[in-house]
Amino acid sequence: MKLAVYDDFRIGVIAGDRIFDATHCVPATLDSWPEQRMNWLIRNWASISGDVEKVTDTSPGQPVNDTRLRAVNPAAAHVFAIPANYAAHLGEIGARSITTGGRTARDVGFFLKAPGSLSGAGEPIELPYGSARRFDHECEMAVVIGKGGRNIRRADALEHVFGYSCLIDLTMRIEPGEHEEDRSLRKSFATFTPTGPWIVTADELGPTDELRSRLSVNGEQRQHARIGDMIVDVAECIELISSVVPLRPGDIIASGTPKGVGPLEVGDTIEIGIDDIGSMTIPVAAAAPSPRPF
Amino acid sequence: MKLAVYDDFRIGVIAGDRIFDATHCVPATLDSWPEQRMNWLIRNWASISGDVEKVTDTSPGQPVNDTRLRAVNPAAAHVFAIPANYAAHLGEIGARSITTGGRTARDVGFFLKAPGSLSGAGEPIELPYGSARRFDHECEMAVVIGKGGRNIRRADALEHVFGYSCLIDLTMRIEPGEHEEDRSLRKSFATFTPTGPWIVTADELGPTDELRSRLSVNGEQRQHARIGDMIVDVAECIELISSVVPLRPGDIIASGTPKGVGPLEVGDTIEIGIDDIGSMTIPVAAAAPSPRPF
Repeated sequence: MKLAVYDDFRIGVIAGDRIFDATHCVPATLDSWPEQRMNWLIRNWASISGDVEKVTDTSPGQPVNDTRLRAVNPAAAHVFAIPANYAAHLGEIGARSITTGGRTARDVGFFLKAPGSLSGAGEPIELPYGSARRFDHECEMAVVIGKGGRNIRRADALEHVFGYSCLIDLTMRIEPGEHEEDRSLRKSFATFTPTGPWIVTADELGPTDELRSRLSVNGEQRQHARIGDMIVDVAECIELISSVVPLRPGDIIASGTPKGVGPLEVGDTIEIGIDDIGSMTIPVAAAAPSPRPF
Repeated sequence: MKLAVYDDFRIGVIAGDRIFDATHCVPATLDSWPEQRMNWLIRNWASISGDVEKVTDTSPGQPVNDTRLRAVNPAAAHVFAIPANYAAHLGEIGARSITTGGRTARDVGFFLKAPGSLSGAGEPIELPYGSARRFDHECEMAVVIGKGGRNIRRADALEHVFGYSCLIDLTMRIEPGEHEEDRSLRKSFATFTPTGPWIVTADELGPTDELRSRLSVNGEQRQHARIGDMIVDVAECIELISSVVPLRPGDIIASGTPKGVGPLEVGDTIEIGIDDIGSMTIPVAAAAPSPRPF
């Protein structure tokens, strides 16, 4: 199944080029807190998936192109990100990179992005207003956790995956002489984690190793990779993270970027796609002025 | 008012040495997702605070010492932490510190801790099983956000504070020759962010500058500070963070540690207190073995 959050945080099922409203499968109590609907759906998937699937038969749906696709889970409890996870990317972004000295995801582990940085296929990326800093794109596959847990072994880990999505990990770079903000700040500006266009559930997608990801800016391809070339694969990511902190249903893991990381500027258009998942094209705009400029 | 989460994530009001059950003020829909009750309460505080306050008149309560106090908001959307925020702490933990080169919170901004690292006054701190690494304590005041928002100006920031609490920020240190995990991993082990014993609402607490914080290990005082000596004060923290990412109701800000950071070991007992907020005494234990050791 393909699941999305759209418009005012409604839950939708995608079939062909149409989206079917499944919001009624989630309790009305959440109407005042609609960002939580996808978390609820994932937590209760075993008991409600049958009802959700039926909506493609019982409602007329609408063209998915006429909807505003949001982050695939706007209130994920955690957004974990795996650095240094493709051999060809190691060291490519200079001395301030996490990947200097041959370190990989096995050394560095994970870092965190703010869930408030999540956005969706229908929302522009917003770079901080008036900033002279450099902002880079990273092309990643998102893993959405279904069943939570602590100390999950690699052999059992894929049972904890709800589904997959495309994810762009945006970063404010540090150049010599600039402020040296912590990585988790530099990656947490609002809209710096576009996810989408939807979640493809793990049962529908199957094994991911042979899938290819690709990212282009203004029509020029900058990144592409075979998902199976990750140094730490999805199962090991889950083992690693859950050895530190319990995974919660709906958590998102940004599984790492291949080489080809490069800068984005206001006015650019970025496209990301992964075989059998989907693709999304997102404009790059400027954010409103903030009391503290960056 | 003093508010706590206790036992199976019930909501309590503390008066004297008793805790009064206010769980019925939160929708029963959340009975299957009780970790979210405090988020709900904070979001809906304006309309339900009167009912919550009344529980001390209408229920017999129970001794607070007989309850298991949990994290003050176990499902906070974000845990932001401010490094390098007391002048006397800068540089004290060596070359790998974020505070080298005279950098302060104004340069570094904030980092993130996993909400899954939150624990409470009634829960032991658990160090990773069998680890030979060093684990340090940091004594901090927690700020709990009430009204969320983006680009909040310093002058308006304190209107966004719901209340305050004590917070211990635990960190796995890096020594030369060890893996160099990202800061957000090293600070995100489950139980590495004890908060408590309760939230004192901002209207009850009043200005915080003259409050004193203190932390001791096995009865020996190691840290103490005047809250007003922070380099970046609470209002500026809120301006800084909300210039990056929208604050959400229930978010927690760990406002920074004074000097005296030191190691903890299994078997230790740690106590933290802040004037007019409260204090908590927490044992240090070992976690269960994990598939990936640290």
